[in-house]
Amino acid sequence: MRFMTTSDKPENAAGTPETAETAEVTGIAAQDWAQASADPQYRAAVVDLLGALAYGELAAFERLAEDAKLAPTLVDKAELAKMAAAEFHHFERLRDRLTEIGEEPTRAMEPFVDALDGFHKQTAPSDWLEGLVKAYVGDSIASDFYREVAAHLDADTRGLVLAVLDDTGHAEFAVEKVRAAIDEDPRVGGRLALWARRLMGEALSQSQRVVADRDALSTMLVGGVADGFDLAEVGRMFSRITEAHTKRMAALGLAA
Amino acid sequence: MRFMTTSDKPENAAGTPETAETAEVTGIAAQDWAQASADPQYRAAVVDLLGALAYGELAAFERLAEDAKLAPTLVDKAELAKMAAAEFHHFERLRDRLTEIGEEPTRAMEPFVDALDGFHKQTAPSDWLEGLVKAYVGDSIASDFYREVAAHLDADTRGLVLAVLDDTGHAEFAVEKVRAAIDEDPRVGGRLALWARRLMGEALSQSQRVVADRDALSTMLVGGVADGFDLAEVGRMFSRITEAHTKRMAALGLAA
Repeated sequence: MRFMTTSDKPENAAGTPETAETAEVTGIAAQDWAQASADPQYRAAVVDLLGALAYGELAAFERLAEDAKLAPTLVDKAELAKMAAAEFHHFERLRDRLTEIGEEPTRAMEPFVDALDGFHKQTAPSDWLEGLVKAYVGDSIASDFYREVAAHLDADTRGLVLAVLDDTGHAEFAVEKVRAAIDEDPRVGGRLALWARRLMGEALSQSQRVVADRDALSTMLVGGVADGFDLAEVGRMFSRITEAHTKRMAALGLAA
Repeated sequence: MRFMTTSDKPENAAGTPETAETAEVTGIAAQDWAQASADPQYRAAVVDLLGALAYGELAAFERLAEDAKLAPTLVDKAELAKMAAAEFHHFERLRDRLTEIGEEPTRAMEPFVDALDGFHKQTAPSDWLEGLVKAYVGDSIASDFYREVAAHLDADTRGLVLAVLDDTGHAEFAVEKVRAAIDEDPRVGGRLALWARRLMGEALSQSQRVVADRDALSTMLVGGVADGFDLAEVGRMFSRITEAHTKRMAALGLAA
């Protein structure tokens, strides 16, 4: 499975370049949680979002701890363990937030367990470098996605989502290690490029599964709720995420 | 392999009961690190101790993260992940302390990697309950051992060692879960009792390996340095640790 690899900027219908960052703050985005959550559909969508993000962090914790075992040195092992601990603390903030708004965290996470476990099961890295590429690609795409969505959330939820997406230092670490490995043996680049493509394909197929299953979440994404995305905007969002992925892979010395 | 299971208090040579807690604070224990570390043999022993403890925490992090995968519920999984993160932060403090006293943490940990990895490899739990018992038994014994040793350390090192031994909440959690499982199916108790015995045996055999390899550490333990233990005291220490283990197993509903 292959994502678009063109580097042309996707154009929106109005012909004016508009990214999530420059979008005007109106509607939900101008409200706080107390106001915005009065809409039960919006509330359900945010619970889904926090649940998915929380289980994502818990799964990331497990994945990084598992990858730590593949680390070639004790310093590398400690570095991965540190990232794992950081992901766990993100999980704690999301779980506590769910409790704070009167939701049972486990129930909010449950709907996303199969998709996330499925993703990790289908993409178990066979060595240290594959683990690093996976963590880097996975974190980056998830982070891009949540940042895009965050722009359409109420101020309180947005603040939390952006806080837990704070870089855990993973990107820089992974880039440095992978580059060094490719410099040493250029054939490694080809193998890892294929691997990155497989990761993107698997991530996409699990995302589709979630979108098909979770009405509130997908309704928010395609504009049924308040000032959510419209379908064209969802297309543009995927283009931006794919472009960013392509650029990151190139920077890493991998053809995407 | 079996430890002594008598519940009789071991008597020391002088016939007066004397535990680590009631021992008079003299010699090294009355000094701070700056004074105590002037003795190169003491310094080497402490570097060994911190290295062993640091790698022990890192290995505990990995083990708990691994066990989290066996958790029957998301709440249990999060509970284990929390303990793993706590162990990682203990590791950080020990590593930072090694750096602070001018030692390379990796070099200090290296000598203990084989023994600790060997222990974990020989005692991979086959299910959630075995994992809990292992974590509980392992943490308790390690904690007892380090507390005993701590009483013979300079004030600065002692403070750090006691701080990282702070309960991470594991004991209570494990006891509650294991008891409930035995209540539900008493046959579980027999299986877990055998498992606990195997853990003790393996822990002992790996400890002997470390003691045989690390001169500075074992010299400190058997009294060659400053006011370290004498050989009789080491025997008494092992008796106290074994007794405490026996009591813990009984409290858990397991014959030790």
